[in-house]
Amino acid sequence: MKKINIGMLGIGNIGKGTYQTLEMSRSKIEQSTGMSLEIVKILNRHPEIDRGIDIPKEKYVTDAYDIINDPDIDIVVELIGGIEPATTFMADALKAGKHVVTANKAAIAANGQMLQELAYKNQLMLRFEASVAGGIPILNAISSALISNEFSQVQGILNGTTNYILTKMTENGTPYEEVLKDAQAKGFAEADPTADVEGIDAANKLSILISLLFGIGIKPGDIPTKGITTVTSEDIAFAKEFGYKIKLLATAHNENGKVTCNVEPSLVSENHPLANVNNEFNAVYITGNAVDNLMFYGRGAGPLPTGSAVIGDVVSVARKIEKGAAYDLLPHLRYDADLEFAGEGAHHYYIHCHAVDHPGVLGQIASTLGVYGIGIKTMMQRAGDNSGGTVPMIFIVYDVDKSILTTALQVLLTNGSVSSVDNVLRVLKS
Amino acid sequence: MKKINIGMLGIGNIGKGTYQTLEMSRSKIEQSTGMSLEIVKILNRHPEIDRGIDIPKEKYVTDAYDIINDPDIDIVVELIGGIEPATTFMADALKAGKHVVTANKAAIAANGQMLQELAYKNQLMLRFEASVAGGIPILNAISSALISNEFSQVQGILNGTTNYILTKMTENGTPYEEVLKDAQAKGFAEADPTADVEGIDAANKLSILISLLFGIGIKPGDIPTKGITTVTSEDIAFAKEFGYKIKLLATAHNENGKVTCNVEPSLVSENHPLANVNNEFNAVYITGNAVDNLMFYGRGAGPLPTGSAVIGDVVSVARKIEKGAAYDLLPHLRYDADLEFAGEGAHHYYIHCHAVDHPGVLGQIASTLGVYGIGIKTMMQRAGDNSGGTVPMIFIVYDVDKSILTTALQVLLTNGSVSSVDNVLRVLKS
Repeated sequence: MKKINIGMLGIGNIGKGTYQTLEMSRSKIEQSTGMSLEIVKILNRHPEIDRGIDIPKEKYVTDAYDIINDPDIDIVVELIGGIEPATTFMADALKAGKHVVTANKAAIAANGQMLQELAYKNQLMLRFEASVAGGIPILNAISSALISNEFSQVQGILNGTTNYILTKMTENGTPYEEVLKDAQAKGFAEADPTADVEGIDAANKLSILISLLFGIGIKPGDIPTKGITTVTSEDIAFAKEFGYKIKLLATAHNENGKVTCNVEPSLVSENHPLANVNNEFNAVYITGNAVDNLMFYGRGAGPLPTGSAVIGDVVSVARKIEKGAAYDLLPHLRYDADLEFAGEGAHHYYIHCHAVDHPGVLGQIASTLGVYGIGIKTMMQRAGDNSGGTVPMIFIVYDVDKSILTTALQVLLTNGSVSSVDNVLRVLKS
Repeated sequence: MKKINIGMLGIGNIGKGTYQTLEMSRSKIEQSTGMSLEIVKILNRHPEIDRGIDIPKEKYVTDAYDIINDPDIDIVVELIGGIEPATTFMADALKAGKHVVTANKAAIAANGQMLQELAYKNQLMLRFEASVAGGIPILNAISSALISNEFSQVQGILNGTTNYILTKMTENGTPYEEVLKDAQAKGFAEADPTADVEGIDAANKLSILISLLFGIGIKPGDIPTKGITTVTSEDIAFAKEFGYKIKLLATAHNENGKVTCNVEPSLVSENHPLANVNNEFNAVYITGNAVDNLMFYGRGAGPLPTGSAVIGDVVSVARKIEKGAAYDLLPHLRYDADLEFAGEGAHHYYIHCHAVDHPGVLGQIASTLGVYGIGIKTMMQRAGDNSGGTVPMIFIVYDVDKSILTTALQVLLTNGSVSSVDNVLRVLKS
């Protein structure tokens, strides 16, 4: 039986999950491919740590280049995470003639184009299914089964931590801070949750999806990104009254070559398939010109789901090695010069504010919004005590650029008709 | 630019959609593969019919063997539908050295194993992504990106017509017959809707999913199948009171090598991702040992979504032709001798019946069910007029084999505690 040798960089949670996934699926893979896949070397920079997994000690190496330069290794699997040294290791592995499979969203979002050009130039494969939405096989589908589609939009719930937090806030009315602490205790959120709760992780993944779906490179740092830290249980309750759930959405549109995108907590209609994506699950909703709407749902993180995606890529590369066909006909990521990054785009917005409780104030707000071309789709005013205090008001407004909306809200604050703007969130049109 | 020649059998709605999809995606495919795909011949047995599509007349042939035996054709795309003559055409194309792509669920469910063995023997490819769930790229994902998983279950909404009918019955409370007529008028249901509404179409697709997911061949005719014709608006309303929607589910489980399956209208919890799959959309929910739960959602029919899947397969085969790698290392469909078909399996059930309205009747029903080992999970009794008439009762019971449930219900009818059994439907555990 043909043997494919794999060198794995990293033996953290994802590394262990990948190792376990391969052990679990060994007989099925042999039965389906006629090949034996073996992880022969593992980079373990801290061999003194007990990893809690039964791996023969002789597989461990402490120098990445013991793997990268090993002539017997066919595929390097990079599971270190972070931009560096992972990018350098992957580039050096490609230069050394190894195929590369990675789960690293940060490195691919930052350096995917460079790495894939290196792979193409050397007639090798670079695959990164696990880098977006964990176990959900979305990237390979976009590049292969869905190749005949021009895509017009993507809406993704791409971060499990924030989706878990928002779900618990929705189910129990618990405030953000409390749910975050609970999530940290359960291991669903990291001690420093910044990358998750501020939307940075989702922006990395969105950047990769945009390049595969639309063929344009937009750096994660250029994607307008807003996290979930300002979402309150009150907003969730108001949204529910209008028939919406609040989700951290990563979205992008391609309209006649102008690509808009953002990451933002958004109101999603309860009837939309994304609305039932709860807890730590992820989903990617895309629209193609032939296939129309598609959604992929599953676990976006976790050792075994991520391992499933990594091993899927490894087997795909291994099958092609066996056939002498382990290269791409043209670069895997395509970049279309006709496309233009056009910022955040116009969207429907939910505005939660407090207005001064006196006659005529609603007319004043509506006229000011009208001056800025902002149409009100629906609104709700809570009862006040009519003593000159303030009353909570919720507006959902039609398509507007956020900068214009921000200006209009500033005017309302200045002219005194609104005493506070409590939150502004996107509303997903459906 | 390398040219791949395609011969297409059939120019009905799916044929036209496939032709259009290829025209729409021509430049993207060339940009991604460096190849030009051309449909050079089309079997059109009725050239006198105006197909309403601009196709050069010289492409049409009236004899399938003008395509099957044409040495310039690389890939035969079969879009006739039905078991014969499609199976014979595909077998003869494979014998003539052509790769075959098909959207034909009936032929693949009936003869997939024979055809794929023929393809494997001749070192050719047979692909049929479009045969299950239309544009949803589920089959290739199972065989490739998800290869490392052993699957334990699948739950599918695999028929758009019945899902459309059930959705409209749910939204508007309209009776089945009326919605069916409306669906027929709108082209969502055929003049003879039997294959859809009786679950036959879903059983064909489930048979194909079972062979790919579990590696066992179960003929569609052996799958216990119940259609939606007995589902009433009353059942839908009762289900709603318990927090469920009714969907036509095609399900299969693999428990320690025993595979159970059925097609049946089923109650699905409103919080389950399948519950928001509405109208003509399809979805496939699967569970693997590494990836855990995954759901794929999209259009299960229609010319362009089906065309998307067909062209996806064609491009995949074409890429491998270009690399000299258009063959499978081992048979694409695997069959595991250790698996056993174990019938329908035990499930939770919803029972809608009428009981005689006198004291003690509920105790009588509960004891009889208990004799058969049937536990009641929840029940609801509607108010009667207490005049010796009958009252509607709804039970949801724990896991039981349907044959045992049927016997128990027969006893209740015979001993007079139940005057009618109005409906029995599966309940999806979630």
